[in-house]
Amino acid sequence: MSKQMTRRDFALTNEELRLQETLFHTANGYIGVRGNFEEGYPEDFVSSRGQYINGVFDIADMKQAEQLYGFPNKKEVILNVADTQTIRLYLDGEEVTAFGQGVRELNRVLDMEKGTALRSFIWKSQKGEEVTVSYRRMTSFTLLPLFTIEVTIISHDFEGSVSIVSEHHGSAQNFVNPNDPRMAAEAEDYLSVAETRYDEEQQLSKITAVTKTSELSVQTLVFHDVSSQLELGLVEEDESVSVVYDGQLTVGVTIDFVKYSLFLDSRRYDLEKDGGSFVETVRQKPLNQWYQEQEEYLDKFWRQAELSVVGDPLLNESLNYSLYSLIQSAGKDGISNIAAKGLSGEGYEGHYFWDTEIYMMPFFTLTYPEIAAKLIEFRYTILEKARENARILGHKQGALFPWRTISGAESSGYYPSGTAQYHINSDIAYSIIQYYQATGDLDCLLRFGGEIVVETSRLWLDAGHYEGKRFVLNCMTGPDEYTCVVNNNYYTNLSVQYQLNWLVKLYPLFKEQKADFLDKLQVTDQEISDYESAAAAMYLPYSEEKQIHAQDDSFLEKPVLPINELPKQDFPLLLHYHPLYLYRHQVCKQADIVLAYFLHDEAFDTEAIQRGYDYYEKLTTHDSSLSSCIFSIVANQIGDVEKAYRYFEESSKIDITNSHHNTQDGIHAANMGGTYLGLVFGFAGLRIREDSLVLTPRLPQKWTGCHFSVNYQGSQLHIVINKEEIHVSMETGAPVNLTVYDERRILSQENDWKIPYRKER
Amino acid sequence: MSKQMTRRDFALTNEELRLQETLFHTANGYIGVRGNFEEGYPEDFVSSRGQYINGVFDIADMKQAEQLYGFPNKKEVILNVADTQTIRLYLDGEEVTAFGQGVRELNRVLDMEKGTALRSFIWKSQKGEEVTVSYRRMTSFTLLPLFTIEVTIISHDFEGSVSIVSEHHGSAQNFVNPNDPRMAAEAEDYLSVAETRYDEEQQLSKITAVTKTSELSVQTLVFHDVSSQLELGLVEEDESVSVVYDGQLTVGVTIDFVKYSLFLDSRRYDLEKDGGSFVETVRQKPLNQWYQEQEEYLDKFWRQAELSVVGDPLLNESLNYSLYSLIQSAGKDGISNIAAKGLSGEGYEGHYFWDTEIYMMPFFTLTYPEIAAKLIEFRYTILEKARENARILGHKQGALFPWRTISGAESSGYYPSGTAQYHINSDIAYSIIQYYQATGDLDCLLRFGGEIVVETSRLWLDAGHYEGKRFVLNCMTGPDEYTCVVNNNYYTNLSVQYQLNWLVKLYPLFKEQKADFLDKLQVTDQEISDYESAAAAMYLPYSEEKQIHAQDDSFLEKPVLPINELPKQDFPLLLHYHPLYLYRHQVCKQADIVLAYFLHDEAFDTEAIQRGYDYYEKLTTHDSSLSSCIFSIVANQIGDVEKAYRYFEESSKIDITNSHHNTQDGIHAANMGGTYLGLVFGFAGLRIREDSLVLTPRLPQKWTGCHFSVNYQGSQLHIVINKEEIHVSMETGAPVNLTVYDERRILSQENDWKIPYRKER
Repeated sequence: MSKQMTRRDFALTNEELRLQETLFHTANGYIGVRGNFEEGYPEDFVSSRGQYINGVFDIADMKQAEQLYGFPNKKEVILNVADTQTIRLYLDGEEVTAFGQGVRELNRVLDMEKGTALRSFIWKSQKGEEVTVSYRRMTSFTLLPLFTIEVTIISHDFEGSVSIVSEHHGSAQNFVNPNDPRMAAEAEDYLSVAETRYDEEQQLSKITAVTKTSELSVQTLVFHDVSSQLELGLVEEDESVSVVYDGQLTVGVTIDFVKYSLFLDSRRYDLEKDGGSFVETVRQKPLNQWYQEQEEYLDKFWRQAELSVVGDPLLNESLNYSLYSLIQSAGKDGISNIAAKGLSGEGYEGHYFWDTEIYMMPFFTLTYPEIAAKLIEFRYTILEKARENARILGHKQGALFPWRTISGAESSGYYPSGTAQYHINSDIAYSIIQYYQATGDLDCLLRFGGEIVVETSRLWLDAGHYEGKRFVLNCMTGPDEYTCVVNNNYYTNLSVQYQLNWLVKLYPLFKEQKADFLDKLQVTDQEISDYESAAAAMYLPYSEEKQIHAQDDSFLEKPVLPINELPKQDFPLLLHYHPLYLYRHQVCKQADIVLAYFLHDEAFDTEAIQRGYDYYEKLTTHDSSLSSCIFSIVANQIGDVEKAYRYFEESSKIDITNSHHNTQDGIHAANMGGTYLGLVFGFAGLRIREDSLVLTPRLPQKWTGCHFSVNYQGSQLHIVINKEEIHVSMETGAPVNLTVYDERRILSQENDWKIPYRKER
Repeated sequence: MSKQMTRRDFALTNEELRLQETLFHTANGYIGVRGNFEEGYPEDFVSSRGQYINGVFDIADMKQAEQLYGFPNKKEVILNVADTQTIRLYLDGEEVTAFGQGVRELNRVLDMEKGTALRSFIWKSQKGEEVTVSYRRMTSFTLLPLFTIEVTIISHDFEGSVSIVSEHHGSAQNFVNPNDPRMAAEAEDYLSVAETRYDEEQQLSKITAVTKTSELSVQTLVFHDVSSQLELGLVEEDESVSVVYDGQLTVGVTIDFVKYSLFLDSRRYDLEKDGGSFVETVRQKPLNQWYQEQEEYLDKFWRQAELSVVGDPLLNESLNYSLYSLIQSAGKDGISNIAAKGLSGEGYEGHYFWDTEIYMMPFFTLTYPEIAAKLIEFRYTILEKARENARILGHKQGALFPWRTISGAESSGYYPSGTAQYHINSDIAYSIIQYYQATGDLDCLLRFGGEIVVETSRLWLDAGHYEGKRFVLNCMTGPDEYTCVVNNNYYTNLSVQYQLNWLVKLYPLFKEQKADFLDKLQVTDQEISDYESAAAAMYLPYSEEKQIHAQDDSFLEKPVLPINELPKQDFPLLLHYHPLYLYRHQVCKQADIVLAYFLHDEAFDTEAIQRGYDYYEKLTTHDSSLSSCIFSIVANQIGDVEKAYRYFEESSKIDITNSHHNTQDGIHAANMGGTYLGLVFGFAGLRIREDSLVLTPRLPQKWTGCHFSVNYQGSQLHIVINKEEIHVSMETGAPVNLTVYDERRILSQENDWKIPYRKER
């Protein structure tokens, strides 16, 4: 089954096109280009014509209505960088566009195995002659700065002149939507062109633009490779460069026009030198060879990340799209991370959140651990800024990671559901601990992860205090953003306990390995013993009366908001209710304690989870796209596989069905990761335990089975689940411990394992 | 003893001048003019040249860093209206300024009995000749739009030409300070001149300016009355009008130059017609007669508001200045209120806060009840907007008064220490109930106060809920702004209980009087019974362990911030600590529970107050100017009169000593009221009880006595306290109940009352 997403004969409405701009974006973790039409849209269409470099940002003013101490008044924002998408095509002087009279067979195909996005249509001239035009785009996984557009023109019966205008703009404006708190509200010219050069000999345009404030530069180089029928004509050079190729089109001859763009930024490249050598590299191979390499890269990816369900084709399309989006979105260089919208749009201003660690890292940890390690390295590069952030918040020690950031500066404007979400600290620690357990990668731990865990632990000890014998954490916000700045958020306290206990557990190893950071940070045995005490004394609120875990100290005492009685148009509630109103009620935007039931399942017995799940489910609106996937996983934990399926259905198709009505602003990257979690951690019941990988499969009625690959301790495993048996085999690597249901074995390449599927848990 | 504030031979530093601009401002509750030099300052001085009309505002953008639902993104701001202050004086072509070489005897006098502000100096020409120049300003209490400047020039030995240039600018810019959260951060041209006219026959300039957004107009009319030596010369007319008067100055002849300005606004006047008739009215009398009327007005004021301490002259200056500031600041027309900075500057953007009801109204209630009634009427005029505000906050019934406003729109940008201070509702209700008890003014209650009390009570019932048998109020902020959005703030809950109980008590009276609002609001007996139940069930948090009242549900469980160990430069803490840090600690910006001990003293026994006072005193930084006066009053309640005196000292001189370092932005109007409270409610121990006025005097060692006048139930009382006896007499009015210490009598004009002073309580 080929991995393709297609849209055939779609309606040319603005809404659909904006949505497709997102869905058909092409990205490689370094650059991302939205799927805009090369020829543009009619004037009354709103388009977010965008191209982004991961980690390239400017600093925008963030005016606070009241500027209290420590409120950031600058924020980092992703930049819409140089626009090289525009290509206009004229046949006998008539402009060829998808909007032309008589256009038919307008199709788009995202080929996730080839790593290209194709758009094609049959165009009809005023005289009634037809040509097929197609545009194939690629952002190269093997040469990250490279973006290509290949235009192919085949005449059915047209004969005449052809003229192709290709534009190269050195800067672009960010998209603006003043009515949505999740989007930028005002247009800003962040980038300005510093130098435009057209090299006639090389037929190469090079534009360098600089940011207003962050002192970054972006260089784009554009050149073309065209069929012999075409000849270079006019070149106009201004702040932009526009080149025209002219020729003749006849029946039976295919015109092929390739536009190569290279995107280089000053954070990673030497803009004086690197541009030229990249051009040379690209020119050394024909486009087909770049296509070939792209396919090979993805071939490896799909082998490592293989994941499929038997019995639900639409779901598989969505699963493929999710995993493909993740590999498209993830920064792989330690300088960048994964933005909430990947590289597909400017929603949330390109910020990195806890989404990475809790929703997306497990996928990389289990399929592409090199990338997971780079994501940890990224956090390490901003550790110093996290220390500064902790000082701003009044903490005398430790580091507090920013809730929203690109290069480390806190960019969240409303601290109650931003900076106050201290749990990002324990989320990062959790992901490091999980990564270490899954991979055994001691080097990453000693170089990056260990220091992060120590510094975030120090923050916890400064932020919390003993109240009698209890260690408490006050005035923080948990994952649920409808209940902010509370005392003893259960999720946070439990995550901190987990992190502290693990630090205590890892400390002898750090000592034994003579970890550099122990000296650097002057870690003492006493300090570690303080962590142990605090973890042991950690207060975890519980209602004896209701026999459930309390989301925080006062949550259960508030009146329940009857969300089932509210009109549908009131959702998401954040757009229709004042925060004070929401905070005053029992209502949850998303999984909070239920997320703890997943991440820390070993800390609970199933009956307690069941009671808590039933209670909090009634209160949760799932107004966050991070919610349904977690409810799905925990439904599986409590054995309600059909409910798990319903939540999974909801969660897995958010973008391809645009069910949250904002996919036009970019994909929901965390939800892509959540879909992976829902299948692998939910239905397959995978858990990374200290000494074993664990599977507890459950299949919903609709499916006959599922299969996927994971990497555990460096070994590549393949898992096939159906309603008869679970078959686990090892493709490469050394023997590992594996537990299926409650049976444990050592799995090796020689010894695969089949175990009967259990209908009842 | 004359009531004057003087500054003699003061330093011409920018700091001192900015401070004097505030201290020597002249205002009458309608207009306020800062004490700027007519001739201006040297170029490198920063001056806030200001003139304001109470209640005249524009609407400014208030950008929220994150625009959540219900966050206001507009705010009302006081306007710096037309500038008519400028008068330049030239002698033989040399400009006369206070900054000239050889200037001496530079003095300022604010005469609080005459109601004028005088500035004078002796100026020396380059040739060494001297003249005395003086500027006397008045904002008329008897003709509110009128502002006059009288310039007098007396030659010692100068003979030569004199030239006076008088300017009239129809608009001015608001003052800007980007570094202070309490001031506006960006310059805005709110007013633009729509029409400038100079009437040659009448020698009158008239400029009309309109606001950008609020659709208000301000008209200013300027004309002059000059000694016969001067003749009108050049008139320049542009957006501004500048007129020149020329003449000769000789020894022995005084030149007198009077500039009349009239300020009219479109909220109160018909700008087409009223200007002309005001000009006529002013011209009907010579300036001296306007001075005379001013003095008569103030004579009555000082008789009604008489207040003096024996044995502390500086304190009396400060007391006089406080009361004078209050009469200068208070809106007296039901359209306006009292801004936090009065009409002396643009600090807090001219907003009205709870300061009015809790800190300033008691003064008016007891000395000028007509004004107190107008302040209640003002709240009534914005009741409809308060209802709208309640809907924005999600409440299905009732009204929530805006925390900061001018004409009713919530203008607070940070809701945790703004909109969340719901207690403004019960503060307004409290002031109405107190006013009614002090005056017996049933008419005000039936027309305005009653409806406000019902609508605010409805809000409470919607905002709170029953938790078991307790009625609780969650997610609100009490007076202490270092602890925000908490559950069951003691002060709030107690104030609400008080308000609900009083509504229950007043209901039969409302029914008997067939109050219109009962029908209008469809008040039912059941509703009233619900208030009774909620009041009875009101939860008031108390720590059994510590035996003190808890500021809120979790306050006492937080770590204490050791404020005595913090460096001095860390204060005020709000400028040096992130709110989350402050919220996480036991630390108070101001009196919170201690304010409840004052306002609701009958609800506590003295021992409980003593314990609470001792506890909370250690936690309070008094970073708010509203704090010390309350600590002084409650120190008196617990019998520590010397501590009371120290707090009173601190609080009573904030502006004249500029101890908070921001008097340059305007007076601390609430503190002026607090000073009154400190003396009358503190040392004299006055309370307005349901059926009696109560006095419990205590005098600090330093004073030999004090005396003051109050109006109670329409009767004017005079109270003299010394360490021998308390002497209460009635000047006008019907007999009233009076209680001194624990003795109660009926006081009448015929029967005054002397009772021995009790050294020990």
